[in-house]
Amino acid sequence: MTRSTPIWKAIAASLRQDIAEGLYRAGDKLPTEAVLSARFGVNRHTVRQALAALADEGLVHARRGAGVFVTTVPTDYPIGRRVRFHQNIAAAGRTPAKKVLLLETRTAHISEAEALNIQEGAQVHVYEGLSLSEDQPIALFRSVFPAQRFVELPALLGRNPSVTDALEACGVADYMRASTRVNAKLATATQARHLQIAEHAPVLRTIGINVDDCGIPVEVGRTWFAGDKVTLTLTDT
Amino acid sequence: MTRSTPIWKAIAASLRQDIAEGLYRAGDKLPTEAVLSARFGVNRHTVRQALAALADEGLVHARRGAGVFVTTVPTDYPIGRRVRFHQNIAAAGRTPAKKVLLLETRTAHISEAEALNIQEGAQVHVYEGLSLSEDQPIALFRSVFPAQRFVELPALLGRNPSVTDALEACGVADYMRASTRVNAKLATATQARHLQIAEHAPVLRTIGINVDDCGIPVEVGRTWFAGDKVTLTLTDT
Repeated sequence: MTRSTPIWKAIAASLRQDIAEGLYRAGDKLPTEAVLSARFGVNRHTVRQALAALADEGLVHARRGAGVFVTTVPTDYPIGRRVRFHQNIAAAGRTPAKKVLLLETRTAHISEAEALNIQEGAQVHVYEGLSLSEDQPIALFRSVFPAQRFVELPALLGRNPSVTDALEACGVADYMRASTRVNAKLATATQARHLQIAEHAPVLRTIGINVDDCGIPVEVGRTWFAGDKVTLTLTDT
Repeated sequence: MTRSTPIWKAIAASLRQDIAEGLYRAGDKLPTEAVLSARFGVNRHTVRQALAALADEGLVHARRGAGVFVTTVPTDYPIGRRVRFHQNIAAAGRTPAKKVLLLETRTAHISEAEALNIQEGAQVHVYEGLSLSEDQPIALFRSVFPAQRFVELPALLGRNPSVTDALEACGVADYMRASTRVNAKLATATQARHLQIAEHAPVLRTIGINVDDCGIPVEVGRTWFAGDKVTLTLTDT
């Protein structure tokens, strides 16, 4: 260590490298100040200086009473006419996956019937699940489809969780997003558990309607994105 | 009161009318159960039945320990290529206004210089303010402009808070939104105070870049919308 490199800078560099190499991943808690003091053989004040430098860079952040965590870099999630979960995540260089939580057929709620332009009291298929990126849950979704038009949909989704594939098998070669509404909400206890975030953490809720190439609604979906994990990006195409 | 109209239904109808007529406005707290009991000459159980019916309709909602509030119907705020605050709010049938909080000229932060495609260390004009709809604050914004190109901008904004008017006076006849990024966040204490919402209430943060008709960035802006007061709507045009 030369005189020109303060010890806290060397410690910050070492932790920076640990993060870059994936020893600590996004969302992970760093060891406590006491543990880091012992590891680097310095007093806590020096450790704190190093952590403050990393926090300034946005690489870590302290949560009061909980410790210091590696900052999650949100996944960019493009919202456009052609929304395809799988493509979106893959385009961000990450591995997408879906986990089915619920497949059921029930009477449409009034708002669902309106959105799908079907009769009040008609049946709908409901598909709830979790969207994952690199095995991390990033969104909960509830998609609702007109049951009369897509009789086979639940069976198809049971075998393969892709909505695009299931709709194609039902004769919808292409679909597009007709509208999207975005709100900021606080996670409920159930949402927080599924998304592995704190209760009352911020979530982005989108409500989208997808239409076939005749403009007929095929799906109305609500998605709750973990606010810290996703940035919705709107690009004009 | 005929036998076919239970007293709680009559009370609910009366409160519904009070809300419709604007006696209680969105966000207002209703009188306590004790006050309503006295006003209608019924016991609290009956008042509670009436309030539960209104809550089922989504017209009011209870906040634990705080009382019953008239539900705010979020203002729809279209995000598209031609984002104009004034037009957006007026299109929703509401009266827009802006309040200037800060006008200053300073060195650009790195992210601002990148977004505006100007040299690191160049000067920018910063315009912070509050966007109001019907006298209710709905968003905080921080807009950043290249100072060298728009020398007169702060003086213009000091006289008239409209960015569109100020840019036009600087020779930008038209501008468009090139990109928008949306995140969900929790309100900081300062944001909560300005937006008249609870600390840690959800906010929608957008980061947008506006470009002139040659595609040159003229403004990079961050906006924090009160999550309960605004729905961002994305329409494909």
